[in-house]
Amino acid sequence: MKNLETDAERLIVQEVAPRDGLQIEPTWVATEDKIALIDQLSGLGFSRIEAGSFVSPRAIPALRDGAEVFTRIARKPGVTYVALIPNLKGAQRAMLAGADELNLVMSASQAHNRANMRMSCEQSLAAFAEVVTLVQGARLLGTAVTLNGTVATAFGCPFEGKIAEERVLSLVEQYRQMGMQGITLADTTGMANPRQVAALVKRVLAIVPASMLTLHFHNTRGLGLTNVLAAYEAGARRFDASLGGLGGCPFAPGASGNVCTEDLVNLCHETGIATGIDLPALIKVSRTLPALLGHQVPSQVAKAGLASELHPMPCQELAA
Amino acid sequence: MKNLETDAERLIVQEVAPRDGLQIEPTWVATEDKIALIDQLSGLGFSRIEAGSFVSPRAIPALRDGAEVFTRIARKPGVTYVALIPNLKGAQRAMLAGADELNLVMSASQAHNRANMRMSCEQSLAAFAEVVTLVQGARLLGTAVTLNGTVATAFGCPFEGKIAEERVLSLVEQYRQMGMQGITLADTTGMANPRQVAALVKRVLAIVPASMLTLHFHNTRGLGLTNVLAAYEAGARRFDASLGGLGGCPFAPGASGNVCTEDLVNLCHETGIATGIDLPALIKVSRTLPALLGHQVPSQVAKAGLASELHPMPCQELAA
Repeated sequence: MKNLETDAERLIVQEVAPRDGLQIEPTWVATEDKIALIDQLSGLGFSRIEAGSFVSPRAIPALRDGAEVFTRIARKPGVTYVALIPNLKGAQRAMLAGADELNLVMSASQAHNRANMRMSCEQSLAAFAEVVTLVQGARLLGTAVTLNGTVATAFGCPFEGKIAEERVLSLVEQYRQMGMQGITLADTTGMANPRQVAALVKRVLAIVPASMLTLHFHNTRGLGLTNVLAAYEAGARRFDASLGGLGGCPFAPGASGNVCTEDLVNLCHETGIATGIDLPALIKVSRTLPALLGHQVPSQVAKAGLASELHPMPCQELAA
Repeated sequence: MKNLETDAERLIVQEVAPRDGLQIEPTWVATEDKIALIDQLSGLGFSRIEAGSFVSPRAIPALRDGAEVFTRIARKPGVTYVALIPNLKGAQRAMLAGADELNLVMSASQAHNRANMRMSCEQSLAAFAEVVTLVQGARLLGTAVTLNGTVATAFGCPFEGKIAEERVLSLVEQYRQMGMQGITLADTTGMANPRQVAALVKRVLAIVPASMLTLHFHNTRGLGLTNVLAAYEAGARRFDASLGGLGGCPFAPGASGNVCTEDLVNLCHETGIATGIDLPALIKVSRTLPALLGHQVPSQVAKAGLASELHPMPCQELAA
């Protein structure tokens, strides 16, 4: 296991709770609270925060205030604020609101893309090309916005099952040729396993550098952190994670959601992998989530505390 | 990652829910239900089941029916039924009840041993020597009972903090010299991390063969399966796990307990590591636990189902 605290070994966490975490919450989180959450997170060492989306308010009412959130957050220098966008109109709105990066999503699986985006993969790619043109034009005018392309269901589709590595590699290559600055492989419904992850990441890193690649895992079947470690060992360095483990999968009621940020950062720090994130402060923020959302969250470390926090001896205990 | 389905690569799961899982449950589980649970488990491919304990009924009232459980379960040939015992009296009771193996526990940490066993580590070792004498005498009379020694808090103590590797190695060596047939390293309160696990397992396997060594991890801070994989990669082959993830840690209210059996078996099967366990049937048994215990359990796979179980396409979904 690599453990040198050099830049090359550093693990970069992109915090996605404000977008991927909040989008499925049934309770409305006030715009003020979203902004406060993002501003707290930007003070803890994150270099990348997915702060909202510019999807139709009918599709995702929980994030209908994306424009207001982006315009009112306290921009911290060095932090990239990312917006999920579904199409050209969303891209225009996100750029007007000041998003630093646009994240475009399509699924490797046709069936999932139809269910999720209501179009074929080919239609999604055509729509991406329009956004690329928009962004290239904006760059000529001096705007520094970047593009990230996400391959959802890259490790399996709940409708189609296994996804061929060649299918994912083909999409990665198409994203690269389109000029995307970043590419995310997402295990949208938590179907990945560490052996599969190691194999696919090695093949993708033969096409794109580690600085371009983000892995997005869900902990649906308890394998989130094993997949992160496998990807890290295979050379990946950027990972999405969600404060408190917010987020989820519509096919697994009660199951865990995205990989939990504080659990991931704890794993890193315990094994000597630097993240630059203030973990004790992060845990404090996570512990405010149950009051904000009205339910417990899947985070383990927020409940258990750090292993380094010792306890007084009790009167009685019996465990092995 | 090793993946050949040979005996040498097979991962052996010892199911500990009937003992380590049930011992902290506030709800009384009827003797009939305990027996039914154990008999269901023995039909699913487990070669080892920790079926109960012979601790003082005042200390652990939930397991006060250990003798009745052991005498009434339907013994399946090839299955080793293990009893946790605290002392000579417990050993005598367990042997009379027909336990195949006695599991003796002491902590690497003096503070934890005093809290847990109410004696010093030296006193625990002296008590173990009495049990060894008892068992050796019984063997001369034709009884085939075996002994397993557990080192609790082997990866960290909630009172003392880090535990030196030399301390654990010294106890392993003392267990071996006493003639124990098996040795378990337990991460009693979920303080281990995969780098630490790999390092310690490698050193222990230089003293004892993999066939003698069991690893017992808790998922308190979400690292249970990462620790299993690290130990497996380092050469360990036997692991404790608890159906539904039952069990827990008194210092982490709401946190996960033992590594969950079905989550572990799913990890193995998804990555090509054979266990010999019928996973779909195991999940069905796990799904009976909430009704038995009156609360949800931490298992992920029991909630999410297997990744290979596909879903019909929904009308609407939006996730990445």
